[in-house]
Amino acid sequence: MEFSASQIALIIKGSVEGNPNATVNSFNKIEEAVAGQLAFLANPKYEDYLYSTGASVIIINEALELREPVAATLIRVPDAYSAFATLLQAYEQIMEQKMVGIQEPSFVAKSASIGENVFVGAFTYIGENVKLGKNVKVHPHCFLGNNVVIGDNSILHPGVKIYHDCVVGKKVIIHAGTVLGGDGFGFAPQPDGTYKKVPQIGNVLVEDEVEIGSNCTIDRATMGSTIIHHGAKLDNLIQIAHNVEIGTYTVIAAQTGISGSTKIGNRVMIGGQAGIVGHITIADGSRINAQSGVSKSMKQPNSVVTGSPAFDYTSTLRSQAIFRNLPDLEKRIAELELLIKQLMTEKESI
Amino acid sequence: MEFSASQIALIIKGSVEGNPNATVNSFNKIEEAVAGQLAFLANPKYEDYLYSTGASVIIINEALELREPVAATLIRVPDAYSAFATLLQAYEQIMEQKMVGIQEPSFVAKSASIGENVFVGAFTYIGENVKLGKNVKVHPHCFLGNNVVIGDNSILHPGVKIYHDCVVGKKVIIHAGTVLGGDGFGFAPQPDGTYKKVPQIGNVLVEDEVEIGSNCTIDRATMGSTIIHHGAKLDNLIQIAHNVEIGTYTVIAAQTGISGSTKIGNRVMIGGQAGIVGHITIADGSRINAQSGVSKSMKQPNSVVTGSPAFDYTSTLRSQAIFRNLPDLEKRIAELELLIKQLMTEKESI
Amino acid sequence: MEFSASQIALIIKGSVEGNPNATVNSFNKIEEAVAGQLAFLANPKYEDYLYSTGASVIIINEALELREPVAATLIRVPDAYSAFATLLQAYEQIMEQKMVGIQEPSFVAKSASIGENVFVGAFTYIGENVKLGKNVKVHPHCFLGNNVVIGDNSILHPGVKIYHDCVVGKKVIIHAGTVLGGDGFGFAPQPDGTYKKVPQIGNVLVEDEVEIGSNCTIDRATMGSTIIHHGAKLDNLIQIAHNVEIGTYTVIAAQTGISGSTKIGNRVMIGGQAGIVGHITIADGSRINAQSGVSKSMKQPNSVVTGSPAFDYTSTLRSQAIFRNLPDLEKRIAELELLIKQLMTEKESI
Repeated sequence: MEFSASQIALIIKGSVEGNPNATVNSFNKIEEAVAGQLAFLANPKYEDYLYSTGASVIIINEALELREPVAATLIRVPDAYSAFATLLQAYEQIMEQKMVGIQEPSFVAKSASIGENVFVGAFTYIGENVKLGKNVKVHPHCFLGNNVVIGDNSILHPGVKIYHDCVVGKKVIIHAGTVLGGDGFGFAPQPDGTYKKVPQIGNVLVEDEVEIGSNCTIDRATMGSTIIHHGAKLDNLIQIAHNVEIGTYTVIAAQTGISGSTKIGNRVMIGGQAGIVGHITIADGSRINAQSGVSKSMKQPNSVVTGSPAFDYTSTLRSQAIFRNLPDLEKRIAELELLIKQLMTEKESI
Repeated sequence: MEFSASQIALIIKGSVEGNPNATVNSFNKIEEAVAGQLAFLANPKYEDYLYSTGASVIIINEALELREPVAATLIRVPDAYSAFATLLQAYEQIMEQKMVGIQEPSFVAKSASIGENVFVGAFTYIGENVKLGKNVKVHPHCFLGNNVVIGDNSILHPGVKIYHDCVVGKKVIIHAGTVLGGDGFGFAPQPDGTYKKVPQIGNVLVEDEVEIGSNCTIDRATMGSTIIHHGAKLDNLIQIAHNVEIGTYTVIAAQTGISGSTKIGNRVMIGGQAGIVGHITIADGSRINAQSGVSKSMKQPNSVVTGSPAFDYTSTLRSQAIFRNLPDLEKRIAELELLIKQLMTEKESI
Repeated sequence: MEFSASQIALIIKGSVEGNPNATVNSFNKIEEAVAGQLAFLANPKYEDYLYSTGASVIIINEALELREPVAATLIRVPDAYSAFATLLQAYEQIMEQKMVGIQEPSFVAKSASIGENVFVGAFTYIGENVKLGKNVKVHPHCFLGNNVVIGDNSILHPGVKIYHDCVVGKKVIIHAGTVLGGDGFGFAPQPDGTYKKVPQIGNVLVEDEVEIGSNCTIDRATMGSTIIHHGAKLDNLIQIAHNVEIGTYTVIAAQTGISGSTKIGNRVMIGGQAGIVGHITIADGSRINAQSGVSKSMKQPNSVVTGSPAFDYTSTLRSQAIFRNLPDLEKRIAELELLIKQLMTEKESI
């Protein structure tokens, strides 16, 4: 698809400087863009590229004063980065919305209910009584078990697997290979040393506007629901165990794991590769740094922890600084011991 | 499916109090159950819900004395939780066993051997000479490479990928997205700084009654077999490298990784996000805490380690406690240095 | 397939001792091999097996002097292990090359371009304008989004998912379940506490001779490319965030995660479960030990770090040794305090 500078200016409410009929058909970074491409300049440290880039159209900040003439058509807006993001999102939505219909071969149970403008990709499996809201896009290779519900405008990328009875809200995005609703890890030890599987008959409930990355695993509850609340954002390869709750607008970086029945509050930020034990609560606004191991509830809102085991951020930093000097500390102790010994010997010899 | 209180009582060998014809068609937690649902009460702290729940039928402990009359039909058993679990497992097995036959489209090589009552889901690929035992359930989107063997009564959830020549025992459950038999990570450094791939021609052997979670990766052996022994239980997103052995009834929590050729003993318990280096052995009954980094063999059975690098649990806890007070410790040393200096000065001035 | 000792000797340029017509049809470890199998002996400590093995043909080092007669046919080469690896690789390539054609059912867009001797497995999805070079093998259940390019002789194992516009070089191997090109994790916080998704319109670029393990996630760049450079080797369950670059012949062990925009140099070695923060650079030849947490750029080539937070390897080892003796260190301080107190008291009493 090709857009003219004037069409783009209309979408992002900008003003055109130069040829309004200059057209572009793709995007690129300003330092790499060539003719026919759109770029933007937000960070002043890249201003030099403005005069050397091959881009045909460039979005820039209203406030920017040019040092030299620019070959490309410019579109001025209050905030170039934000305008560019808006534009891209609009573009991606157009592309996504263009996908409609059911590709073959696919498997759609007769009892499934399919909303308007839905896309079902090839090799996708839609089980009995599944409900897909309007504008739902289910890419190829997805599995939706019996009774799964997907709300309006949600997108499932290729190979998402959702076990039976799970419920996904509206405007949710789930990336490739993520598994929702696998059995929670529950085994009752038996007197003879073997284990008996504890049936996992709950489900997973993902609320509206959640985004989940690739190859995550979110287990179904033993009973009730494992819940990802409104607007939470999860990165890739994250493990969410059975009966966990993740609060509204909480953000979790890649490879973090949260053990069973733990409740994470709202607007919590969790770094990558963090681990959180089961059956605890994390207060609203908490921050948990990368690779932390949280073994106790965080009851005070907006506190910050780090380390494994995790403790208060500031005091852990102090301890870590001394840890790095432990050989020096030991040496100081050895010297003190020597001096004391001297003093004691002298005292005796008096 | 609908069951009456008397039918349920028969299955779990309980005695009915109230209307034996009360029927239920689903399960729920006692605090959330509504008419037509079955619940149970095992933990006395939830007894209040017994008098307010909407559940139609409730399983309770024989010993419980009611404080007030209960609207629901009760079924009394020696252990309500265990009876409920038995019931659910029976129910899940009925549901699973109802799935029989080969869904279309699927790909089943002519040389494959398919046992009685097998289910093959749509979009599943069954390679040459694959053998599926009786009652095996292979859900949609699974891949079974040439010569793979799956024992009786095993279940492969959607999207399990098993490379050629791997062998899975009886009553095994493997969850969605798990990969068995990918190449082990072996590259021989060459004099020119490049790497030559070391061919990985062994396989993966999963013994009976093992359960493996979602999106795990279990690599094939360089030669011989990577082995998951009888009854071991693995959570999600676990990495098992080539030539590893996991002992009988060993339990491993999510996101743990075990490096090449390491042998884990029987009835070992490993917490989440632990890492174990290659070419070591872990004695039977060992416990490795979450996020530990085990760099040496654990030769003493039933010992417990924690930390990264991992050491004896009790002494590591002591060190961790002091670590948190390191700033205080340093202060004490500085004070000692000051006092010693005073004493030394005074001594000289005498 | 069956091979004679003389055929094998020809491939690996060895000399035959014994019956040149002895045939084998599979491989095994020397200690487990039976009649009809090929084995090798490289490590002198296994020499005893040479005289007891059932193997029909054994590859051994030229230099080895036999202590007793050997029943099997021997093939002598300068380096038995290396010859064996060469042989296996040749065998695997023959097997892989035998797969040609498009299995049904599959989905191949008409605009896709398919090279010579390509294999497309059943249930694989090839999007619009996809280009597959010659000898490319795409196993079942793969997804190749629109405009994806795969270079000559590359292999995609079952269930690999590659989002639109990503580019994969020649002789690349990607294992099952790995996802290339999912959206980078970018969300702009809004004044009302919600998040706005930052569109991710770059791609992933995988250069020649890279190997990537199973169930990894490599995110597309926000703009530009996330790049895995020539010959890099990645193990399983690895997370590579948007705009990361991994240098030539860099090797990364399982479950490691690299945050956004970080540049890893050439010939870097990274252990398992390591984490590296975003927006830093790691110099060529660096070594990062398992479970390390790297929070700062490593500017000095060939340096080694360990720990979380990660510091210089040697000094961290020293600190870790003292850490384990912290209770003893504290005791020594307490004793010093006592002695000082004595001295101070005595002084006053003088």
